[in-house]
Amino acid sequence: MSGLRAVTIVGAGKTPFGAFPNHDLRSLAVTAGEKALKNANLGPNAIESFYLGNFAGPQFTDQNHLAPYISTALGMTGIPSTRFEAACASSGAAFFQAFLGIASGVYDVAMVVGVEKMTCQPTPRVTEILAGAGDCATEVKAGSTFPSLFAMIARRHMHDFGTTREHLSAVAVKNHANGALNPDAQMRKVITLGQAMNARPIAEPLNLYDCSLISDGAAAVVLCAADRAREFSDRPVRILGVAQASDFVALDRKADITTFPAVRAAAKKAYEMAGLGPKDIQFAELHDCFTIAEIVAMEDLGFVQRGCGGFFTAEGGTRRDGAMPINASGGLKSKGHPVGATGVAQICDLVQQIRCEAGERQLQRHSIGLAQNLGGSGATCVVTILGDS
Amino acid sequence: MSGLRAVTIVGAGKTPFGAFPNHDLRSLAVTAGEKALKNANLGPNAIESFYLGNFAGPQFTDQNHLAPYISTALGMTGIPSTRFEAACASSGAAFFQAFLGIASGVYDVAMVVGVEKMTCQPTPRVTEILAGAGDCATEVKAGSTFPSLFAMIARRHMHDFGTTREHLSAVAVKNHANGALNPDAQMRKVITLGQAMNARPIAEPLNLYDCSLISDGAAAVVLCAADRAREFSDRPVRILGVAQASDFVALDRKADITTFPAVRAAAKKAYEMAGLGPKDIQFAELHDCFTIAEIVAMEDLGFVQRGCGGFFTAEGGTRRDGAMPINASGGLKSKGHPVGATGVAQICDLVQQIRCEAGERQLQRHSIGLAQNLGGSGATCVVTILGDS
Repeated sequence: MSGLRAVTIVGAGKTPFGAFPNHDLRSLAVTAGEKALKNANLGPNAIESFYLGNFAGPQFTDQNHLAPYISTALGMTGIPSTRFEAACASSGAAFFQAFLGIASGVYDVAMVVGVEKMTCQPTPRVTEILAGAGDCATEVKAGSTFPSLFAMIARRHMHDFGTTREHLSAVAVKNHANGALNPDAQMRKVITLGQAMNARPIAEPLNLYDCSLISDGAAAVVLCAADRAREFSDRPVRILGVAQASDFVALDRKADITTFPAVRAAAKKAYEMAGLGPKDIQFAELHDCFTIAEIVAMEDLGFVQRGCGGFFTAEGGTRRDGAMPINASGGLKSKGHPVGATGVAQICDLVQQIRCEAGERQLQRHSIGLAQNLGGSGATCVVTILGDS
Repeated sequence: MSGLRAVTIVGAGKTPFGAFPNHDLRSLAVTAGEKALKNANLGPNAIESFYLGNFAGPQFTDQNHLAPYISTALGMTGIPSTRFEAACASSGAAFFQAFLGIASGVYDVAMVVGVEKMTCQPTPRVTEILAGAGDCATEVKAGSTFPSLFAMIARRHMHDFGTTREHLSAVAVKNHANGALNPDAQMRKVITLGQAMNARPIAEPLNLYDCSLISDGAAAVVLCAADRAREFSDRPVRILGVAQASDFVALDRKADITTFPAVRAAAKKAYEMAGLGPKDIQFAELHDCFTIAEIVAMEDLGFVQRGCGGFFTAEGGTRRDGAMPINASGGLKSKGHPVGATGVAQICDLVQQIRCEAGERQLQRHSIGLAQNLGGSGATCVVTILGDS
């Protein structure tokens, strides 16, 4: 990967996340895309390649062939327009490919949009569609869906490291406190540790407040070669490192379910590209599809020692005023989790912090942030490190 | 796009196309992938990035997150593994991205697999899933599926240019004659012009023999930087040009439905990259999802003047002994059309001809071939030009 050019983000835009019965998949994507174009001060004709992240649009809405369906509605024709699917890391994967397209000198300006429209299906069907990111022939056939897969991970983490229910709930309490300050979050509701501990069970030991939300939403960014960034933005954000890695889809193929090799592999490559280590990261947006996922992620990324993520959270280390603020946006837990949008939405959240535009959630140290976007129970991971330019 | 490195194909492998009740989506993809690895004399560890083309696996089989699901079964972990969806041009789009990954110097060796498993669903459901590549909110809601969309294209082509039913049937007769010689083809059956003309109607003026098949199958290639090709193959095939372009999904958004701007745009770029024009192409694999599509494609690619494709076909110009042999493999019409596999399968067919391995179908002039992979009614197109190296 030698000889790559510097790449910046010159525009970012998101829809609020929530349940929006009056907005279809395309209108959400177009809203986010238009905001990002406007933020970058450019028109659709400037975009040389279009990258769409979407997990299961065809199953949620019947509509497939989504990339040109959306890019033409944004005013783009004639350019490559492709959809990327990598479960809940779909738009992280799209972002990674767009980065490579510019870093390698093939394109100067590209757009990435992530979108999902989930609330048009009843919850049991949503759970079934999401389960398609697991191994349908084995674990899903045996009755597992994602809450139960992550419940097994939580149970094992508790057994091996002494992580407790309080630790899991501390993740939820912190992310709800952050999301309550985010005007675009789906669930702006502060919760107490007692509420989090005593919510109704979903898949033991996970309860309602350990699970992320079912959401509609979209997010978009415009990427640009660094040497042209000032044409479009006076606050370009630099992509310091980005990497994608893969692993087995079925949980039972993993040697140890309390750590994800794809996360460690992607993190290693992203750190190397950035010339940074975990200690240099000032804040992060992690993929808290379940509370235990945030704990495992902070360990796999090297922010804390293995097994210490729950303790660190309970001590306040990941709060906005902690040593390593995590999910100041509210995370998937409170902000919402339109799965195909989440990867790019995390990037937008980093951009907002780096540009000092996060309002009440603004962090004190905000120059170098990391986003970790997970697919399934760790079969895909994309890690991105952004910084001031 | 300056400064790109030369890229070659060093391995190719396909499954037969057909209805295979005993093979699931993954086993088909793995079979093709292993053949391609063997053909390239290398193991899975040599692959630096994995690109999967698949249109609607989650709808046909429930399984999603297909890229790592397949790449891990091929023995690959830790690398980027991503699925690309662009309707029936899904694996063409995956191939294009893999080419860029190597041409730009990011990777040296990459694998592209295309796969679709369609026969597990009843035909009406298959038609419904395929219709997701059209605009569900307008044309599909109004009752259109792909046979009727291409029927409108055929009717208009007849009206504007004097194309006849005989011309359409001549495409089918020629492709069946070719496919009968292809041991991997789904329908190895020679048909007469009378049979083709008098088959039962599907969507007037298209009848049964104007429509491609519903198929299971997979195809795979290994790409490699040209300067390393001889490590893996004594018969590397050079990628002379490749480009992808997009356009509106809904047919009624096109100014003229007898020509596809995305095909013309992709062809223009691919010809420019190759430094070649239509007259330099010696043979081609075109996307004959319907007979009329082959006629429109040969016009949009510049092989014949607009409106002349039907006449040229009826005169024998596209037969194996004609001036421009088209679909010597049998095409989607006779070889079969597992939609997500088709783009890479066309590439494999070109490789087979260029390497003089096409048996009874071997063409006399086989040094420079072109593949055209279409998505929907022209919203995506990928054009690839391969040559002897």
